[in-house]
Amino acid sequence: MSKLKLYLDTLSQPCRSLLIFLENTKIPYEPIVVRLGKGEQNSPEFLKVNPLHQVPVIDDNGFILRESVAILRYLCREKKNVADHWYPKDSRKQAKVDEYLEWQHLGTRLGCGLYFRTLWLEPLATGKTPEIRDIQRCKTQMVTACDSIENHWLKNKYICGDEISIADILAASELEQPRLAGYDPRDGRPKLTEFMARVREATNPSYDEAHKIINTIVDKYKGQPPLKEKKSG
Amino acid sequence: MSKLKLYLDTLSQPCRSLLIFLENTKIPYEPIVVRLGKGEQNSPEFLKVNPLHQVPVIDDNGFILRESVAILRYLCREKKNVADHWYPKDSRKQAKVDEYLEWQHLGTRLGCGLYFRTLWLEPLATGKTPEIRDIQRCKTQMVTACDSIENHWLKNKYICGDEISIADILAASELEQPRLAGYDPRDGRPKLTEFMARVREATNPSYDEAHKIINTIVDKYKGQPPLKEKKSG
Repeated sequence: MSKLKLYLDTLSQPCRSLLIFLENTKIPYEPIVVRLGKGEQNSPEFLKVNPLHQVPVIDDNGFILRESVAILRYLCREKKNVADHWYPKDSRKQAKVDEYLEWQHLGTRLGCGLYFRTLWLEPLATGKTPEIRDIQRCKTQMVTACDSIENHWLKNKYICGDEISIADILAASELEQPRLAGYDPRDGRPKLTEFMARVREATNPSYDEAHKIINTIVDKYKGQPPLKEKKSG
Repeated sequence: MSKLKLYLDTLSQPCRSLLIFLENTKIPYEPIVVRLGKGEQNSPEFLKVNPLHQVPVIDDNGFILRESVAILRYLCREKKNVADHWYPKDSRKQAKVDEYLEWQHLGTRLGCGLYFRTLWLEPLATGKTPEIRDIQRCKTQMVTACDSIENHWLKNKYICGDEISIADILAASELEQPRLAGYDPRDGRPKLTEFMARVREATNPSYDEAHKIINTIVDKYKGQPPLKEKKSG
């Protein structure tokens, strides 16, 4: 029985969520770093693991599974000693966690991810500044998602009640991402701010460990992509 | 014990999926139509059911649940006589269905939905033709998603093996949507074409019933939104 393998890059929000979950539930795993910045998700070796070029992926003794939410649900089912609050067995409580897990794809995941991609990742890759119209479009989408967290989802200490679940780890990891591109979802959102601090406290030291690289980038570049002069020829 | 209530509009892909599932599993339900075209998702009565303005929603004897994927999982767990193939209890098989359910949000759901919205829904609401750049952007996204279905997901008769699951109903309902805006995902994709015919055959007559309104619109308007001259003043 080999150790669970986790293919990841902590620049990716869902990868950070999985890392924090595995550390907090003490599931033994072997991390395999796939450096997205170096295009390692396109290597022939990695494409055998995921032809869709994405991390995270797990290899659980030969069983390969993609998609962070599917992976989290599988680990909660399969691994020993995962406390019930992470993903409750009670059918209605579980359904309410699922409600958030399914909403977040086109909510925070699309909103925060697209903003980061448009204002940071694409300029870094192409050397081109994004157009004002594109910035506005993805900013509106992100702001709407962050406002939904503040005004709709946070009725209790955590998203699905007063105990932490996998929904909270996914939410917090997404909300950290736009800071790379100069937008902090906590500004002007007191409930969201307290919530993020609560998730961090409940899951540390792994929360800070998972966010180490992005925090270093935020500190160094202050929300601006480190554009280089493109070499000619 | 009151009957399960389903708030829906068959113009919405996830609503059609739920309708097809409920009919095929013979779960008794009461449909409550929320006419999106008339803005009924914004009415004070509906906002009590879903403050996020979206259908589908179920009310299962007072338990309100949103998000089609969360609803489908809940119904497979809770309702009697739902055949195992819809959402297998075997952990690894279930994980593979989950893998698709989670991928599809930013895959077919975003791709096909955004195309429909940009080329059909928004022009209908505003009377304005979309910009070429926006058409290109969302067409690329949709084509990529449809190609993933053709080249990656369809290795067997159905998406997760040789038996139909909730993944297939969701996939087929999404792939029907861009036809409203003049794009048929079946063109040039033989595996996807066979797959859609297979899902239709396996779930009829409810598949045709669920797609009745959109088929009527496609026949009548041939993929063009029925724009009216905006009244002045």
